[in-house]
Amino acid sequence: MTRPRPLTGRGDLSDTVRVVGEFGVIARVVARAGSAAVADVGPGDDAAVLRVPDGRVVATTDVLVEGRHFRRDWSSAEDVGHKAAAANLADVAAMGGTATALLVGLACPADTPTAWLEGVAAGMAAECAPLGAAVVGGDTVASAPDSGSIVLSVTALGDLGGRAPVLRSGARPGDVLAVAGRLGWSACGLAVLRRGFTSPIAAVGAHRRPTPPYAAGPAAADAGATAMCDVSDGLLADAGHLADASGVAVDVDRAALVRTMLEPPGAMQQVASALGADPLAWVLTGGEDHALLATFPPGTVLPGGWTAIGEVREGAAGVFVSGEPAADVALAVGAGRTGHVHFG
Amino acid sequence: MTRPRPLTGRGDLSDTVRVVGEFGVIARVVARAGSAAVADVGPGDDAAVLRVPDGRVVATTDVLVEGRHFRRDWSSAEDVGHKAAAANLADVAAMGGTATALLVGLACPADTPTAWLEGVAAGMAAECAPLGAAVVGGDTVASAPDSGSIVLSVTALGDLGGRAPVLRSGARPGDVLAVAGRLGWSACGLAVLRRGFTSPIAAVGAHRRPTPPYAAGPAAADAGATAMCDVSDGLLADAGHLADASGVAVDVDRAALVRTMLEPPGAMQQVASALGADPLAWVLTGGEDHALLATFPPGTVLPGGWTAIGEVREGAAGVFVSGEPAADVALAVGAGRTGHVHFG
Repeated sequence: MTRPRPLTGRGDLSDTVRVVGEFGVIARVVARAGSAAVADVGPGDDAAVLRVPDGRVVATTDVLVEGRHFRRDWSSAEDVGHKAAAANLADVAAMGGTATALLVGLACPADTPTAWLEGVAAGMAAECAPLGAAVVGGDTVASAPDSGSIVLSVTALGDLGGRAPVLRSGARPGDVLAVAGRLGWSACGLAVLRRGFTSPIAAVGAHRRPTPPYAAGPAAADAGATAMCDVSDGLLADAGHLADASGVAVDVDRAALVRTMLEPPGAMQQVASALGADPLAWVLTGGEDHALLATFPPGTVLPGGWTAIGEVREGAAGVFVSGEPAADVALAVGAGRTGHVHFG
Repeated sequence: MTRPRPLTGRGDLSDTVRVVGEFGVIARVVARAGSAAVADVGPGDDAAVLRVPDGRVVATTDVLVEGRHFRRDWSSAEDVGHKAAAANLADVAAMGGTATALLVGLACPADTPTAWLEGVAAGMAAECAPLGAAVVGGDTVASAPDSGSIVLSVTALGDLGGRAPVLRSGARPGDVLAVAGRLGWSACGLAVLRRGFTSPIAAVGAHRRPTPPYAAGPAAADAGATAMCDVSDGLLADAGHLADASGVAVDVDRAALVRTMLEPPGAMQQVASALGADPLAWVLTGGEDHALLATFPPGTVLPGGWTAIGEVREGAAGVFVSGEPAADVALAVGAGRTGHVHFG
């Protein structure tokens, strides 16, 4: 756990993890961490202690690896902090909860500038702050000498506020399939960065800092959602996880999806056109936007932010797009696969 | 979060993370994870949901890096699982709590044998089982292509059972300093392994699988401990953290420490004698045994497993050994420093 110490100096751009040491790094990061509303004991002891008035805690972990989930030349430290936090906060939302606290495990080369770690902490704090959450603990260690890459493992804890958790396994034939948030933008931004461009910022920014619809998770639970997950691997892949867990067929209505995600045409179509790509490929298979995908009983008035894009049918578990098997559709739009594979 | 899938085959020793993929790895690891008594929702959804009847949750994270905290040629996969779990379970105990669940973030080279990961999971499960705890979630990703090392980030959650958390900051002049568990054995075992030996097993085994006195943490809280921490960096270093946080001087009674930790002479003295080392150096500065260190009001009847080894005094915050500054004593016994520096 974190054991901060008073700082004797700070902000020198030449400082590295090797120079200031583990405790120096932790003190600087904690100074940027903000403060969690639920913390009885925050960073600085063997462990944090958090209030859990609901009597249940939601807990989830995601790992980000440099060169695979982020690149320091494509994303600022603040971007990486935002993205690492968002991936976890969205998982809590996908259960119907609200994140309350993060714990961060970080392994980095000894020559990593402390300013970079402070930037990550600032990005995480900014992503968490609107929810009242903050980093409450963690551990920072130097990587093995043979490793030049940063590994960031983030655990989010959250609160259900009295709601029943919404699992992946509750979808039933006849349910409406709906989405909240954006699809395809992170993949579009990644395609731009891969070609060496840094604009349009609408696309690149979406890759650097996803904007999950956190409030839509608890709202869906309150509205009676039968199943929910976050879209981190891509719509078709994550719909597949939901279909498998529920033992149902999920049919995405292609026209509804296009209407929801691609109309009116904008920056994504311009990028697709410039790159000779089909934007529907990004919408169907791009991950990391952290939209939420849920099913609702037929006739449910969908809460704000949610749009119907399909339905749940009886039959062998699987995903279809207007009746066509997902794998065939993915091939046809040029994605070649239904699941998101990270770069690197 | 973990999203296990049915396995189509298993147990092939040639299987690697690259071959079976992320979902294959997770399914195999989950199969070894055991089951947490508090889990309403275990592995397999966006997040786990755990019951927290106390209304507060203890949370802590520790990171282990291959080549720095463990070596695959010195420790089995099961050993690494035991050690990674123990470091975190001990942090929960040091607050006065009992661990209930672990979440595990793992980054490993794509050619890591899945059998190794299954071994880690089995070791974690075995370390957790006596407490009723288990791994409830996590994320496994391939390392960056330039990295050949494994990074393991473990988060433990725990329950205070109605107790007030015992912080590092509560020690008061006149308090008794006491220890539960062993000191110096992990450092002794490391010294043996570094020389290329694998026995005596009493020493080497202690380095591979520390045995923290988990129950002594809640027992100390019940007995009115004023401050507590786990000894992960070494007795003098961690006593220093407690002294700093409490703003007190901590004086370790050298004779009491020798009586408690080095008498009657046994395997540690034999190793020290063979290597020309002073075993007191290991006891004072060796980390990773995860003993517990606590202070109690004067006159407290210490609970089972706890032994008095010193006292808390007024004065500038710092650590002394029978009145001598800790740094001088560390130098004199040949440790050269008060804090534990990991190998690698």
